[in-house]
Amino acid sequence: MLNVTIWNEFVHENIHQEVKAVYPTGIHMALAEGLAHPDFIIRTATLDQPDHGLTQDVLDSTDVLLWWGHMAHDKVSDEIVDRVVKRVLDGMGLIVLHSGHFSKPFKALMGTSCDLKWREAGEQELMWSVNPTHPIAEGITGPIIIDQEEMYGEFFDIPAPDELIFISNFSGGEVFRSGCTFKRGHGNIFYFRPGHETYPTYRNPEVLKVISNAIRWAPSKAGKQVFGNSQPIRPLQIPVV
Amino acid sequence: MLNVTIWNEFVHENIHQEVKAVYPTGIHMALAEGLAHPDFIIRTATLDQPDHGLTQDVLDSTDVLLWWGHMAHDKVSDEIVDRVVKRVLDGMGLIVLHSGHFSKPFKALMGTSCDLKWREAGEQELMWSVNPTHPIAEGITGPIIIDQEEMYGEFFDIPAPDELIFISNFSGGEVFRSGCTFKRGHGNIFYFRPGHETYPTYRNPEVLKVISNAIRWAPSKAGKQVFGNSQPIRPLQIPVV
Amino acid sequence: MLNVTIWNEFVHENIHQEVKAVYPTGIHMALAEGLAHPDFIIRTATLDQPDHGLTQDVLDSTDVLLWWGHMAHDKVSDEIVDRVVKRVLDGMGLIVLHSGHFSKPFKALMGTSCDLKWREAGEQELMWSVNPTHPIAEGITGPIIIDQEEMYGEFFDIPAPDELIFISNFSGGEVFRSGCTFKRGHGNIFYFRPGHETYPTYRNPEVLKVISNAIRWAPSKAGKQVFGNSQPIRPLQIPVV
Amino acid sequence: MLNVTIWNEFVHENIHQEVKAVYPTGIHMALAEGLAHPDFIIRTATLDQPDHGLTQDVLDSTDVLLWWGHMAHDKVSDEIVDRVVKRVLDGMGLIVLHSGHFSKPFKALMGTSCDLKWREAGEQELMWSVNPTHPIAEGITGPIIIDQEEMYGEFFDIPAPDELIFISNFSGGEVFRSGCTFKRGHGNIFYFRPGHETYPTYRNPEVLKVISNAIRWAPSKAGKQVFGNSQPIRPLQIPVV
Repeated sequence: MLNVTIWNEFVHENIHQEVKAVYPTGIHMALAEGLAHPDFIIRTATLDQPDHGLTQDVLDSTDVLLWWGHMAHDKVSDEIVDRVVKRVLDGMGLIVLHSGHFSKPFKALMGTSCDLKWREAGEQELMWSVNPTHPIAEGITGPIIIDQEEMYGEFFDIPAPDELIFISNFSGGEVFRSGCTFKRGHGNIFYFRPGHETYPTYRNPEVLKVISNAIRWAPSKAGKQVFGNSQPIRPLQIPVV
Repeated sequence: MLNVTIWNEFVHENIHQEVKAVYPTGIHMALAEGLAHPDFIIRTATLDQPDHGLTQDVLDSTDVLLWWGHMAHDKVSDEIVDRVVKRVLDGMGLIVLHSGHFSKPFKALMGTSCDLKWREAGEQELMWSVNPTHPIAEGITGPIIIDQEEMYGEFFDIPAPDELIFISNFSGGEVFRSGCTFKRGHGNIFYFRPGHETYPTYRNPEVLKVISNAIRWAPSKAGKQVFGNSQPIRPLQIPVV
Repeated sequence: MLNVTIWNEFVHENIHQEVKAVYPTGIHMALAEGLAHPDFIIRTATLDQPDHGLTQDVLDSTDVLLWWGHMAHDKVSDEIVDRVVKRVLDGMGLIVLHSGHFSKPFKALMGTSCDLKWREAGEQELMWSVNPTHPIAEGITGPIIIDQEEMYGEFFDIPAPDELIFISNFSGGEVFRSGCTFKRGHGNIFYFRPGHETYPTYRNPEVLKVISNAIRWAPSKAGKQVFGNSQPIRPLQIPVV
Repeated sequence: MLNVTIWNEFVHENIHQEVKAVYPTGIHMALAEGLAHPDFIIRTATLDQPDHGLTQDVLDSTDVLLWWGHMAHDKVSDEIVDRVVKRVLDGMGLIVLHSGHFSKPFKALMGTSCDLKWREAGEQELMWSVNPTHPIAEGITGPIIIDQEEMYGEFFDIPAPDELIFISNFSGGEVFRSGCTFKRGHGNIFYFRPGHETYPTYRNPEVLKVISNAIRWAPSKAGKQVFGNSQPIRPLQIPVV
C-alpha cells in the first residue's frame, strides 16, 4: 500500500471557465479518480488549505507526492517548500507534472532555472520511450498520442537527468525531454511533461498509466545515513614525519 | 587568457595559529601563487571585503571562480550567493574546494544536503583517476599521494555526478568521490576534495595540476538561450475535432 | 518466482587444492546454497557440460544468469557467448562476478578491454555504498568488510556505468568501482567485484545479500521492440521543392 | 593539427545513379571538401582499397576517424574491424555517421544491436540541441533544419549515451537521439545521425559545423594505462588469522 498525496494549486479551475469545463472538480480530483487503485491510498492537498494541505504529518505519511502548479507558484510559502524538499531528500518520492517545472520545490531540487520554450496552440504531442524496460515505461508500447497539448520545447534547462525515459515530438517541430528521473538525497523524482489545464490530458489512459507506474517506482528505502565525525575502520597509518 | 577569481573565506588563517603557520597569507594567496601561469589572470576575493569581493563587475569578468570556505559558510550573504549561482548558470565555471561542499552556492546548485563523513587524523589520502582521458585528469598518471589530509567518506550526499574523475582511498578505510563534474545551466562545476586548512595540500604539485586543468576545462561558450513563447517551425497540424 | 542460473567454469575447484578446500562442491554450489530462497528457482551450469550447460532452452527459461569464470575464459565457445549476449539483449538479467570481468560475454557487452590492476595478497576490502537507496544496496548499512580478498584496482576499463553503487577500499591503497550497473538492450547487467576463489567470500552474508538484491533487480519487462521500416504517425509535410 | 581519416564504403555512389548525382565523387570527398580547414590534415579511405585503406600505419597516424557505411557493412573484414576498435580504445576519436549505426566497429563498441526505425520519405528533420554548451554544439543556436532526410526513429538500441547533445523531430512524428557521445577505453565516440546518401546533407553548413566541432572534441590524451599485477602503495594490514 502506497500513500499518495496529490497537490494541486487549484486556481485555474476556479477562475477560468475553460479550465473548469475540463476539470470541474480540479486537476487533483481528476488525477485521484484516474489513479484510483487498491494499492494506493490517495489524498489531495491544495494551495488554499492551511499549510497548503502539506503539514508535517501529511508529508511524513506520504510515500509519493504529485505536484501540479502554474499561475500561483509564488504563492507557495517558502516554509512549506523547505518542508517538501527536506522530505524528498529523506526519501519521499516526488512526481512533478507539466508546469510544475517552474515550481519552487522542483527548482530548489534541480539547482537550475528549469526554463523552456512553450506555445499554446493545441497541437499534437507524440511521446516516445527511449528506455522501454524502465518500470515507468511499463506497458507503453507505441508512442503516447495526445491530440491536443501545449508545446514545451528544448532547451529545457535542467541538469542531465539520471535516466531519460520519454521524448516528445510536437507538430510545430519541437522536441522535449518529457520523462526524466533524478535522484536527490534518498528521494526519487520524476518529471513528466503532459497536462496543460485546458486539455483533458489527465484522462488519457496512457498518461495515467505512466503516472501510476511512477508512483510505484518512486518510493525508496534506506536507513538514515551516518554523516559527521567517524571512527576509522582500520588502524591509521600515520606517515612518519 | 582566462580570468580566474579565487574566493576564500580567510578566517581560519587569521584566528588559528596552526593554519596561519601553513598558509601565512591565506589559502587564496597560496592558490594564486601555485596556479600562476601566463594563461591565467588571477584575482582573489575574501569574505571581509565589500560584497565579499564578489561584485557584479567582478563576477561578470570572471571565467572561473574557485571557492574555499568552512567555518563561515553562514556569513556569506544570500544576495551574493544568488549572484554567484546566477553567474554559474550563465556560464561562469565554478571549482568548489574541500569544505566548500557545505558552501551555500554549492548546496544551492546541487539541491541536496552535500553532507559526508569526516575525520581529522592526518591520515594518508590516495586519489585515483577513474577517467584518465578527461581533461581534468591530464598529466596525472598514478595515484595522487597526499601524506596527511582530513578524511572525507561516503555516503557523500550529492546528485550522481555527470562525470566521476577521482576516487580517494584513506588509510582508515573510507573511500570518497573526490573529483566530480556537474553541468548546471551553462556552467561547468568541478568539486575537488583535497585541501584541509591545517595541511599544505595546496602546495602539492599534482593537486595544483588538477585545479589548473579544471580552470582550463571549466569555461563554456553558448549564446543566450531562447526561452518562452515560441513560433512553430512547421505549420501546425491541428487535429480535426 | 525467478529462474536463476548460476554459471561457473568450475576448473579451479577441481585442480587447485586450496580452492577445493574453500569450495569443495564448487563456487556455483556455494552460491546456490547461499542464495537459496523460496522466491528463487536456482539451477547451475558449468563449462564441462554440453553447451556449457547453457542450451537455448536453459537460457530461454532463465530470468537472471550469474557468471563466474577465470582461468578458462578462452574455453567458452563463441557460439554460446553469442547466445548469452543475445538473451541479455532480449531481457535476461546478467550478474557478472569478480574475475568474470574478463569473460567473453561481459567484454562483448561492454565493448572495452575490461582490464584492471590486481594483487593476490589476502588484504582487507571495505566496500562502501555510494547509492544507498538503490535496490541492490538494500539492507547494506555500513561498509561490507571482507577480511581477505584479492585486490582489484583502478583504472578499470569499462564504459561509465549507468549507476555506480559500491566502491572498494583496499588495505594496500587502491580503490575500485565494485558494484556497477549497465543496461544493454533490454538486459540489466550488474558487475560485482568480490569473490576470489581462494577465500570464502561467497559465504559472507552481506555479499550474498547484495547478489540476492541484484537477482531481484535484474529482470526486466518490455514487449519486443519494433524496428525497421515504419509508417508515419502524421501526414508528412514534404517541403515544396 | 589533427589527422583526420574519412572512411566511406563508397558503393552506393558507384551503382546508384541518384546517389552519384548527389555525390559524384563520393560521400568521403564531399566531406573532405566540406570539412577542409588549415587545422585538419584530411585523408580518405574506402572499402575497395587494400585493408579498406585502413592499414595499421594509417590508423596509427589518425587522430579522428569518420565512418560512413550502409549496404556493405558485411564486406568489412573482421580483422580491420578489430584494428579499428583497438585504435579507438587506445585513444583515436571515432565519428560514426548515419547508417554507420549498423557498422561492425560501432556495434562492437556499443555491445548492443544498434537497431532503430526508419523511413525513406524525404521528410523534414529538425535537430535540437539539449546540451548547448557542449563543444560539439558550439555555434548551433537554433534547430538545424534539414529539408529532406531519411527518418530514423526511437527506440534506438544503444547504451545510454554519456552525453546526449541533439534530438531530432521528423515530420512524420518520430524523435531520435541524433547526437550522442560515448567514451570507450581512451576513445571518444560521437554518433551523428544525418546523412542519407540520396540527399545533399553533407553540404549543409550546420551539419558540417557539428562534424567539424566533433573532430576537434574527439582526440584524447592519456598515457598508457598500467594494468595487471600491482605493488601496494601502503604496507598491507593482513588481518591476524
